[in-house]
Amino acid sequence: MMQSRTHTCGELRIGDVGKTVTLAGWLENMRVVSAGLAFVVVRDFYGTTQVVAETEEMVRLFKDITKESTIQVTGTVRERSSKNKKQATGEIEVVPQKVTVLGKCFHSELPFEINRSREADESQRLKYRYLDLRNPEVKKNIILRCQVVAALRQAMTDHGFMEITTPILTASSPEGARDYLVPARKHPGKFYALPQAPQQFKQLLMTAGFDRYFQIAPCFRDEDARGDRSPGEFYQLDMEMAFASQEDVFQVMEDVLPPVFAKYGTYDRASEAPFLRIPYREAMEKYGTDKPDLRIDLYVQDVTDVLGGCGFGPFESGVVKAVVVSGFNETRKFIDKTLAGVEVQAGDKPYWFRVDEQGELVGGISKFVKPIKEQVFEKLNLKPGDFVALSAGKLSQAQKTAGVLVKTLGAAVPGHMDKEQYAFCWIVDFPMYEIGEESGELEFCHNPFSMPSGGLETLLKAERGEIDPLSIMADQYDIVCNGIELSSGAVRNHDPEIMVKAFEMVRLGEEDVKKRFPAMYNAFTYGAPPHAGIAPGIDRMVMLLAGEDSIREVIPFPMNKTAQDVMMGAPSEVTQQQLDELHIRCTAEEDEEAE
Amino acid sequence: MMQSRTHTCGELRIGDVGKTVTLAGWLENMRVVSAGLAFVVVRDFYGTTQVVAETEEMVRLFKDITKESTIQVTGTVRERSSKNKKQATGEIEVVPQKVTVLGKCFHSELPFEINRSREADESQRLKYRYLDLRNPEVKKNIILRCQVVAALRQAMTDHGFMEITTPILTASSPEGARDYLVPARKHPGKFYALPQAPQQFKQLLMTAGFDRYFQIAPCFRDEDARGDRSPGEFYQLDMEMAFASQEDVFQVMEDVLPPVFAKYGTYDRASEAPFLRIPYREAMEKYGTDKPDLRIDLYVQDVTDVLGGCGFGPFESGVVKAVVVSGFNETRKFIDKTLAGVEVQAGDKPYWFRVDEQGELVGGISKFVKPIKEQVFEKLNLKPGDFVALSAGKLSQAQKTAGVLVKTLGAAVPGHMDKEQYAFCWIVDFPMYEIGEESGELEFCHNPFSMPSGGLETLLKAERGEIDPLSIMADQYDIVCNGIELSSGAVRNHDPEIMVKAFEMVRLGEEDVKKRFPAMYNAFTYGAPPHAGIAPGIDRMVMLLAGEDSIREVIPFPMNKTAQDVMMGAPSEVTQQQLDELHIRCTAEEDEEAE
Repeated sequence: MMQSRTHTCGELRIGDVGKTVTLAGWLENMRVVSAGLAFVVVRDFYGTTQVVAETEEMVRLFKDITKESTIQVTGTVRERSSKNKKQATGEIEVVPQKVTVLGKCFHSELPFEINRSREADESQRLKYRYLDLRNPEVKKNIILRCQVVAALRQAMTDHGFMEITTPILTASSPEGARDYLVPARKHPGKFYALPQAPQQFKQLLMTAGFDRYFQIAPCFRDEDARGDRSPGEFYQLDMEMAFASQEDVFQVMEDVLPPVFAKYGTYDRASEAPFLRIPYREAMEKYGTDKPDLRIDLYVQDVTDVLGGCGFGPFESGVVKAVVVSGFNETRKFIDKTLAGVEVQAGDKPYWFRVDEQGELVGGISKFVKPIKEQVFEKLNLKPGDFVALSAGKLSQAQKTAGVLVKTLGAAVPGHMDKEQYAFCWIVDFPMYEIGEESGELEFCHNPFSMPSGGLETLLKAERGEIDPLSIMADQYDIVCNGIELSSGAVRNHDPEIMVKAFEMVRLGEEDVKKRFPAMYNAFTYGAPPHAGIAPGIDRMVMLLAGEDSIREVIPFPMNKTAQDVMMGAPSEVTQQQLDELHIRCTAEEDEEAE
Repeated sequence: MMQSRTHTCGELRIGDVGKTVTLAGWLENMRVVSAGLAFVVVRDFYGTTQVVAETEEMVRLFKDITKESTIQVTGTVRERSSKNKKQATGEIEVVPQKVTVLGKCFHSELPFEINRSREADESQRLKYRYLDLRNPEVKKNIILRCQVVAALRQAMTDHGFMEITTPILTASSPEGARDYLVPARKHPGKFYALPQAPQQFKQLLMTAGFDRYFQIAPCFRDEDARGDRSPGEFYQLDMEMAFASQEDVFQVMEDVLPPVFAKYGTYDRASEAPFLRIPYREAMEKYGTDKPDLRIDLYVQDVTDVLGGCGFGPFESGVVKAVVVSGFNETRKFIDKTLAGVEVQAGDKPYWFRVDEQGELVGGISKFVKPIKEQVFEKLNLKPGDFVALSAGKLSQAQKTAGVLVKTLGAAVPGHMDKEQYAFCWIVDFPMYEIGEESGELEFCHNPFSMPSGGLETLLKAERGEIDPLSIMADQYDIVCNGIELSSGAVRNHDPEIMVKAFEMVRLGEEDVKKRFPAMYNAFTYGAPPHAGIAPGIDRMVMLLAGEDSIREVIPFPMNKTAQDVMMGAPSEVTQQQLDELHIRCTAEEDEEAE
């Protein structure tokens, strides 16, 4: 028990009736019924409790207290005559004997109403974040985040992983996004960088003999904000396992994530292990994306052979893809509006026709399809009531458009999305190399530091011309949930010889490997274990679980879209002395320099 | 079970004899007995296992593998004929059928021997930290750190605290140490700062309605290194409680820390709640320090009244302090050496005399004491065998010297230190104000943002001249363990009126309060709860638990003393493009600028 309160504002129940209690919290609201009767709501972190002022003196006392002041109330718990079933403490009220103001609110007018802060202007919300967070609707996302992080930590620990914190002041890395730099006072002209991810450190930990590492890791990328990306810092559930294969990583994640999603998410259902594993090329063919939303039962079929020559101009070159939506009862207006939305998102025009109740082809481009009706029916196994959406053109564009059709129609047409669940899958078998669009030559497709499937032998075969380098896969994988990529992961290339050979395939060599990650390459020459890992984004997972579209709703103190903390006033000007000590000078807006 | 191994190298026991197993790990050592017999030690994170090559082919195979390569061994578990009781797997050995090199070590010579890395030069250890960490003696401190952090997290969660991460890119603060600055690309001429501590954020969280916050918080101070302070970043168990008093914070810490210390420390005993609370002034008088080591049974007594006038020159002005050490049997050489050490540490000369077995005063300054033997005996309750160490001069210096005497003699003279425990205490009742040595006027003593004991009323009394401002205490406290300060904490001043009044006492005002913490001061005008907290240093606690003297032994990837990460090459030069994007220029060593 604490000195300032006997109970929290969310704690009192009918069994407490008759007790003398002390509560402490914010004066949320007061409804004055008469000079001798007022109902006061006191709120703390845990809930709200009704306090009833029943004397003129007590009503006057409360009337003198500004809303949102903190107060301490000592009184007697009484059963309410009209109970509030929606409120945890709704069966009781407290009749106060003593009321003390602990922290006065000096403002009779707030920037916004606490319980409606989500409707306020975002810049106001961020500036007065300490008021915004008093809104239970805002606070609950932050609590959710804390609970999810704690649950993930617990699950990783239960799986034998050890949380190790890696340095935040580290070296600038040539890879990836833009670094945040920190001038080094003791080393004029030199800079630390904040880590974009602890990738190198976790691989060094593996090389150092640690077996199962994880970290709720702060990551820093100086990139512009997006809906699902905060400028500045974000967090990853970073993990890595020594002597591990892709399958070992999958098993851990399949064990760790679904229970956390089912327990803390908006939906209480999550995929069970093993998650569907979908090869990258299959995903692109079947879902038109490498981030399929498996809650949708639609998929893409290639119909180039039957429709390519139907005479419809746009189908004449490239490929034709079809998405069949059964049981379709929507209006023409729905079709036009939905496909217009798809066009905007996909950057290319989709087409359509449908099969009416009589089994006739109608609407859209049906006149081009009618002459080959039988082949099309057979190819797509069509039935009355089917709607067929189509995309065409170059393979990549046609796939992309078809992917947007799947996602859009799946969500919009009733009966094609089992929405209330978290549907996970793994995308596997990413190609290691591709032909660069500009260079026309062999280039790395994704991460050059992933292990090529089959290791050195496969690379040597390709070098000898026995296999096509484009057929080489990487032991790399993505975890996708409800159409959102939570993370890429990989079996790392831990072998300096395979690394150099993988680089030689794209006309690079040992010097290039070394240049990119000197410490890691050196370390690997001292005997490294095979290792693999992944790093699902915390912010993105919490957004999914909270059902929020803005990442700022799941961060305690978010920056705004232009990377400013308007509450703290960051970034800010600094003194000349600070700059001098760091051996730097500002080159832009010299007039704005700190005095 | 993982794909690459059936067991870890620390797992096999006599019950596994006969099984076919697969291990994976580092080839730690090989002892070739003959062409057909060799003993191989394989090491992983969990332990070591002996592998016996019994065929010429197998011995040859192992001989081709460089030490510290990673290997996979499949073989049969066999009972050892000569068992090794010291090794967890010492009852068995594995007879290999198949051995595969997983990660070749390309060096036949290592920078240092893995198991003796602690003897190597520190710069080599840091450069090859991934090899240094393979040494079980080095690794165990990092594991300890991870365990301690996990245990602290668990204990805080069990006490209803929620871990909330606060921003790392934030605003430069005028308080405390030097900030690390981060140029803001999108805001030319402006800078983020890395937080010296999440102090303001945790207080804002309280104001936002969070009740019990904690965080294993990264903190950043651009200060020079010390034995117990790493340059750059360090971690705190940062916590804060709303509606809390000093006593509430004490109760949580007294519940949380001792079990963790007793379980993970070098000693298995820790103070039980409640810890001794020692007022600051009493600590200075009794122990000569505000960081007393309560494992020592010695204390300081003021003997100015009896010895001040004994005729010994140094005692004639200022005060005289005595530390009596009973049962003293040390040599004159010991005395000279020990007191010489005290003089170096304290910066002032200590004095001494002793009482021999016959009860005679001998040695040191005894000739000055003899004439007043009776008074001195009575004052200090002396017995034969007592050693009396003395300090003199100005109060602060005499106390300091006496404090060093207590600490040094307590540790050096047998029987005065119950060493194998963690002895905690709270130092309380710090004065709020002091007379500045330079200004000669009233100044803040420690933290101006702590609550003055007694609040506004006490300040008003002082303003009206009813009490001496120097008698005002702050609700501020230190937690000390074995003579080491783990943290300061305080009941915060959450009331803008009291804040301004506290500042007015030292001839400052609202503008000064606002200037120092504008966001927090604003927030407090919207109704803040009383709150209190503390932030024990993680690194310092782990050092205490591990029994290490260098902070670098308890950090996975420490920087060196000049704030460099010699493994990663941080800090480093960056490209002109990076500087241009950040609108800065290096002013020193222009010739060393990156191309």
